[in-house]
Amino acid sequence: MNKNLLSLSIIEKDLNILNYNLQHMVGERHPVLYAAAEHLFSAGGKRIRPALVLLVAKAINNHKIYPSQKRLAEITEIIHTASLVHDDIIDDCSTRRGVITVHNRFNTKIAVLAGDYLFAQSSWYLANLDNLEVVQNISKVISDFAEGEIRQGIILFDPNFSLEEYIEKSFYKTASLIAASCQGSAMLSNSNKNIIRDIYNYGRHLGLAFQIIDDLLDLVGSSYFLGKPSASDLKNGNLTAPILFSLTEEPLILNLIEREFKKKNDINDAVNMINQSGGIAKAKDLAYEHLQAALYCLESIEDSEAKRALQKVAQYTINRLF
Amino acid sequence: MNKNLLSLSIIEKDLNILNYNLQHMVGERHPVLYAAAEHLFSAGGKRIRPALVLLVAKAINNHKIYPSQKRLAEITEIIHTASLVHDDIIDDCSTRRGVITVHNRFNTKIAVLAGDYLFAQSSWYLANLDNLEVVQNISKVISDFAEGEIRQGIILFDPNFSLEEYIEKSFYKTASLIAASCQGSAMLSNSNKNIIRDIYNYGRHLGLAFQIIDDLLDLVGSSYFLGKPSASDLKNGNLTAPILFSLTEEPLILNLIEREFKKKNDINDAVNMINQSGGIAKAKDLAYEHLQAALYCLESIEDSEAKRALQKVAQYTINRLF
Repeated sequence: MNKNLLSLSIIEKDLNILNYNLQHMVGERHPVLYAAAEHLFSAGGKRIRPALVLLVAKAINNHKIYPSQKRLAEITEIIHTASLVHDDIIDDCSTRRGVITVHNRFNTKIAVLAGDYLFAQSSWYLANLDNLEVVQNISKVISDFAEGEIRQGIILFDPNFSLEEYIEKSFYKTASLIAASCQGSAMLSNSNKNIIRDIYNYGRHLGLAFQIIDDLLDLVGSSYFLGKPSASDLKNGNLTAPILFSLTEEPLILNLIEREFKKKNDINDAVNMINQSGGIAKAKDLAYEHLQAALYCLESIEDSEAKRALQKVAQYTINRLF
Repeated sequence: MNKNLLSLSIIEKDLNILNYNLQHMVGERHPVLYAAAEHLFSAGGKRIRPALVLLVAKAINNHKIYPSQKRLAEITEIIHTASLVHDDIIDDCSTRRGVITVHNRFNTKIAVLAGDYLFAQSSWYLANLDNLEVVQNISKVISDFAEGEIRQGIILFDPNFSLEEYIEKSFYKTASLIAASCQGSAMLSNSNKNIIRDIYNYGRHLGLAFQIIDDLLDLVGSSYFLGKPSASDLKNGNLTAPILFSLTEEPLILNLIEREFKKKNDINDAVNMINQSGGIAKAKDLAYEHLQAALYCLESIEDSEAKRALQKVAQYTINRLF
């Protein structure tokens, strides 16, 4: 577990079992896939998605976690990993979480297959949860991923991209899986409709905050997670919250976008302009608002150690910025 | 419809609706994906998989096709298309069905996304069939694809690859989807267990025959479908039934495999050796045996126009060789 998540000790055992299972669920029969999977699942991911599934289970069902919820926690991490493997091909990333990516360590073909296999395995395990509503909701998420990526692909370097569209894209890319996983966990506990809705919205707001903060870290850097700011989003033409906020305050940024940051100091200049025009601060405020909204959604849940852990996950999310 | 499939006139209207739906089901909102999808779904595919789903429905349920079976027919073609899009990346094909492939017309990124999106859409539509058993069976198929491709990837140019392994690989790659689609159609008609099993085995044998014949056509060519023999399987080290049969009769082929057909005339020499040592004839026999087995599985089904059409599909399959 990551140092910053020690507060999740109430599910530490469950997460250890999950780590073990993830390495063994995915294709022990195929040396290459196994290498890919081991590589992926042992790379020390933060396991935030499964942690949320397990904590939601405990928080709304008197500290109990059903086997189906443990399985859902595994499924959610498999889906997330599958999307990362394909994302790395799409974005042509050479490392992820400090580890060389599948398509770089092996090749694009293996990465396409490994991602497909992981998506397929998740669909198969999902269907075997024997709960059609959960299957439907999580299946929708996998469409949402591709939809988010496609939106991202077709709006590169487009200064007409609005903040609303950015939020919608972030929902598809990140918040959809987190929201549906939390919701699925509540559904598997047979919670009432209001609880299920609140838990879904907790996941949705948390997921949006995650994405906004990830996008901020790309611009401001973080000693814990990313080292120096890479500004890779700007380089790729992926316009995120901070620059979108800046556009109204500092019209000069428009020129840099239009020439796709091609001149030598364009990226540095853009980062400075975004900072000085308040884009960073406004994006932080937006992330903070979503975290507050996430916490508000938990108010209908009775107090418990698990509920407090769900609150801590939100706190941990914002802490990444400092 | 392909000229050779005119005999399927009893479902011609349904297939026209299916063609229309396929073009509109897949992402009308995204110009790029829509272009990719239109491109794929209008490319005049043979639509054999949906035809089988519709014919099975009619054959076992008094000429009726339920809406869920029409939807399953669409799903089965979406899954097939998704697998083709990713296969073309993996095999680096530049054309398919005479049309330039997605990853060549657009790029690898779009092809990864388009395939993911199609797989995801199929999972979503599948979950909405509201029949968990069908969802489970078809989800398994998607895993089987990746499994088949991985097997194919790790055994290139390996003369120890056995005929049994070839059949198993062909099942994962081709027969699994056809068998599960036929079976799913029977399940949606609430057929009895014996009928469901027979229909599954009809699809399995037909699918295996399909794959063996495809592999034969790669070596012998066909004026209708592929033009001159491309021997692309040999070039890629993908050892199929004809060469596996020849290995025991003509040990010299081993040398060619071991040097990966690198010398100028190796491919021509290999094709001649396969022919002369009876590899082609034996592979034809194997395909024929599977077609006979497929026909045998239909014996428990009452005679009808739809049943005769299912028999004709098997006949059509073997006709591709002549």
